[in-house]
Amino acid sequence: MTDNWKDIRINPDRFWANFEAQAEIGATGDGGVNRPALSEAHLAVRDWFRQQVDSAGLAFRLDGAGNHSAVLACGPAGGQTLLLGSHLDSVPYGGRFDGPLGVLAALEVLQVVQEAGLKLPVNLEAIDFTDEEGTLVGVLGSSALVGSLRLDDLQTPRGGREALLAGLARAGLDESCLLAAGRPASSLAGYLELHIEQGPRLIEASLGIGIVTDIVGIGSYRLTFSGSANHAGTTPMDARKDAGLGAAAFILAVRRLVLEEFPGCVANVGAVRFEPGAFNIVPGLAELILEFRSPRKESFALLEEALLALAFDLAEQYDLGLQYEFLGRHQPTPMSPAVSQAVAAAAEALSLRSILLASGAGHDAQLLAEACPSGMVFIPSVGGISHSPDEFSRRKDCLNGANVLLQTCLRMVYL
Amino acid sequence: MTDNWKDIRINPDRFWANFEAQAEIGATGDGGVNRPALSEAHLAVRDWFRQQVDSAGLAFRLDGAGNHSAVLACGPAGGQTLLLGSHLDSVPYGGRFDGPLGVLAALEVLQVVQEAGLKLPVNLEAIDFTDEEGTLVGVLGSSALVGSLRLDDLQTPRGGREALLAGLARAGLDESCLLAAGRPASSLAGYLELHIEQGPRLIEASLGIGIVTDIVGIGSYRLTFSGSANHAGTTPMDARKDAGLGAAAFILAVRRLVLEEFPGCVANVGAVRFEPGAFNIVPGLAELILEFRSPRKESFALLEEALLALAFDLAEQYDLGLQYEFLGRHQPTPMSPAVSQAVAAAAEALSLRSILLASGAGHDAQLLAEACPSGMVFIPSVGGISHSPDEFSRRKDCLNGANVLLQTCLRMVYL
Repeated sequence: MTDNWKDIRINPDRFWANFEAQAEIGATGDGGVNRPALSEAHLAVRDWFRQQVDSAGLAFRLDGAGNHSAVLACGPAGGQTLLLGSHLDSVPYGGRFDGPLGVLAALEVLQVVQEAGLKLPVNLEAIDFTDEEGTLVGVLGSSALVGSLRLDDLQTPRGGREALLAGLARAGLDESCLLAAGRPASSLAGYLELHIEQGPRLIEASLGIGIVTDIVGIGSYRLTFSGSANHAGTTPMDARKDAGLGAAAFILAVRRLVLEEFPGCVANVGAVRFEPGAFNIVPGLAELILEFRSPRKESFALLEEALLALAFDLAEQYDLGLQYEFLGRHQPTPMSPAVSQAVAAAAEALSLRSILLASGAGHDAQLLAEACPSGMVFIPSVGGISHSPDEFSRRKDCLNGANVLLQTCLRMVYL
Repeated sequence: MTDNWKDIRINPDRFWANFEAQAEIGATGDGGVNRPALSEAHLAVRDWFRQQVDSAGLAFRLDGAGNHSAVLACGPAGGQTLLLGSHLDSVPYGGRFDGPLGVLAALEVLQVVQEAGLKLPVNLEAIDFTDEEGTLVGVLGSSALVGSLRLDDLQTPRGGREALLAGLARAGLDESCLLAAGRPASSLAGYLELHIEQGPRLIEASLGIGIVTDIVGIGSYRLTFSGSANHAGTTPMDARKDAGLGAAAFILAVRRLVLEEFPGCVANVGAVRFEPGAFNIVPGLAELILEFRSPRKESFALLEEALLALAFDLAEQYDLGLQYEFLGRHQPTPMSPAVSQAVAAAAEALSLRSILLASGAGHDAQLLAEACPSGMVFIPSVGGISHSPDEFSRRKDCLNGANVLLQTCLRMVYL
């Protein structure tokens, strides 16, 4: 075996044309896309992806979780698969890079390997995971693939049970096929994902490549403060049990708590809803959704505990009731050091400056790491902006990232 | 003319049966009703009311604003009308007394006067006003009747333009007939309304009747704090522009402001909404609805000014933008002293202890006072609770209130 494979590169024009084509589907006209998992726009971009797979002469694979893939049988029949991928769904009114970049880079890698006629010790698969972003459940497709999805996860999903069932129905899926979508870990040689950093570290340090060492743990709760709905004109201010005060105080206190006691961690109250929700009624219920993250297991557990204690303290302070519903938790997850070394070597071979960093965002790689050696390649996000129509990465950084993905993949199998 | 009219009383069984029948329509099973203006449940109770008018052998009148009435031609043809009434709509998931009590007491007064064969110097009309509670616009029917409704009021209504148009369509109404529903002030002899107090003063002082001297001024705004929607995992806490923080700080500060600087006034943030509203996105927009009230013109204007200044201060403090939309304002309104004297005399003649008080809630009487001598009779609210399924008034207090309404009405025309 010669080292000719070290000179193989992606086809930049084809890759970029594909990237730009996907960004048109569900486009919001301001540079962003609105493709919540299994929405009509998401189903449209999935159809488009399938057409690309067909046009590329690759095999198409669809599993019970709606994960769909291009498959290149470049390895032995029945051999292990090296998975490359990411997701095509977006947060509501999000950006066009988060997810699709990794899916299309994976597809490009398969096309390049196919064109080079390489025989590898593994087969390659470029996968688009279902509902990474959590509009419905969160890392739904990757959880299902590694067999860690439980029936319970589907009962009280983040996006609500009705939204989940409606989405599954639109996609022609159901719960039993979701739960049966697991693959044996022994079938997987590894997992590699290219993604935008979604933070400012690479761009601020003028680095081209980030090598992910750890992915943050993420937990979420629905909290409901309860007081008394009452007439907002006739009930004196000091005689109210205003559930909105509990929610408002919590939103402010979460920020103080994390800033003062949990450096390196984050928390977010992304939505809040008052009941009954009228101008002239003191809110009787105030429901909010809370998410928190930490890169370290110890602080992750302490943060969760402190946030719940804070909610209870404030409920007491404002004479309110509190109910909390646990919605999900992914522990902080280290990436495979061997894969990270392959990424570092690939970046170096491509003359790209790289750095080791932890990911503040959750990714499908977190789930895949349970089953096989997994790693992630980050490229710079301009302004560190993500989950927004203003999310942007430079074309050259995207192309470099795709080449690092290709070369990492080849290094993992040849060296 | 003898004074026999002084002995006339309402028919308690008929009145109470009617009251209980209306409480079944749109009932929520916990003692409350959910009949937002022009919702299906509200249209159902309106149909029921029309049937009662027909069964009672009274004339039915429907105007362009959807106000509908029982009319008793007990006075001269073409003579003035003494209006009695209230409203059958409720706040979302509200109580069964707020509004219907006054409508059914008015209907009962007309039936009793009809049965007694009284000839009065005026005709009587028992009216149900459209959308008093403000699900759509607020005191919509009474504003239209006195001719103070403007096209502008319908462009950015409190409940949103779409909800208004949908409600009007359901009821077979449109904007042009709303604006043409005005009656000349000269056609109105006066307006009387029986209502629950919705506050704790009567019940705590063991008084049977409240005589309303003033109705609070009410203003409302929609405020929108704007920051930057961004990834809630990768954006450090101190690098965020979280619109939710502005809304939360405002909710807490409104309470402090009113308690410390505006005694006797109230304010409420009844609903709040974050955009895009996802677990993993820092809120880029936070929209809230604000209502504030004062019984005095001077403090009403100062309160409005202070609340807006507070919102701007907090937007600056949290590095956010602020947009505000003025939604409506009703100035504090005094009731007619002559009508109040008639209420006091009627209560005394019925051996009921009464007190003068200001209404912390807005009422259709506020609008009618622009056109004719107007007054209100309050009865005790147990626990002071209102706009809640727990809203409750004792049967005997309701019957006393209806008799005071009857006797006030007769005093106004005979004495």
